[in-house]
Amino acid sequence: MSPGASDAEEVEKANTAFYEAMERGDFDRLSELWLDEGISCVHPGWPVLSGRGEVLRSYALIMANTEYIQFFLTDVKVSVAGDTALVTCTENILSGGPAEEAGELGPLVGQLVVATNVFRRTPDGWRVWSHHGSPVLAETDSDEDEDTPA
Amino acid sequence: MSPGASDAEEVEKANTAFYEAMERGDFDRLSELWLDEGISCVHPGWPVLSGRGEVLRSYALIMANTEYIQFFLTDVKVSVAGDTALVTCTENILSGGPAEEAGELGPLVGQLVVATNVFRRTPDGWRVWSHHGSPVLAETDSDEDEDTPA
Repeated sequence: MSPGASDAEEVEKANTAFYEAMERGDFDRLSELWLDEGISCVHPGWPVLSGRGEVLRSYALIMANTEYIQFFLTDVKVSVAGDTALVTCTENILSGGPAEEAGELGPLVGQLVVATNVFRRTPDGWRVWSHHGSPVLAETDSDEDEDTPA
Repeated sequence: MSPGASDAEEVEKANTAFYEAMERGDFDRLSELWLDEGISCVHPGWPVLSGRGEVLRSYALIMANTEYIQFFLTDVKVSVAGDTALVTCTENILSGGPAEEAGELGPLVGQLVVATNVFRRTPDGWRVWSHHGSPVLAETDSDEDEDTPA
């Protein structure tokens, strides 16, 4: 951990590392970022997955079917309480699956997903306890009324 | 708190109380169940709502537009670590909006939603830190489905 960095800064770095591991298709790094016990994961539109077996298998499947994926994170908000941290963010996703022709990239698809990520402090840094991502389907009409940005 | 009840039992009770407050349309009870600070909420298909102002306004809006709502919770899983608890569950929802005719009930709609609820231990019991609900759109084993959510 970087000396002098606040908890919130360390948590945001762990959150970024989580998405970077997905972007690189780095399954080992992703596995390392998840806690050992009690974890759960909801991919957009999916049911709940529980435990490392189910969760990590889902990532292996997604990585196998994803040729290219990039996350542009916006609205990242971090709330730390003791050894737990809650992160919410908007995942502006650009992704592409394998194309029909070998060596080609599949068609790119844009997707708007919101996520709630829960992290626990461990001796090895902050680790993911829960990830819940869901598609944004509705528009909020009255969200323009001020509200202080975090 | 009930003497002798385990943390996990207390958390499950708080989770049940959260849905019961929704079923009764009890806005005061629901407000009481949320923590004071750092809260976030994602309703199915919605963007992230942050802070008591946004979160509680959304519940007032939902309650105003819901004549009837019932949650049948299944697959409830509780993971407690220190003063934080993570609950995942499937919300089998039956709801109805106001009907055209006064005194009538609107058409009932069934909905399958999965939720990740995070609770914090407080002197007044377990309180909601985060709620994230999302529609279940895909089957886990649908390998033939081209747009597997990433």
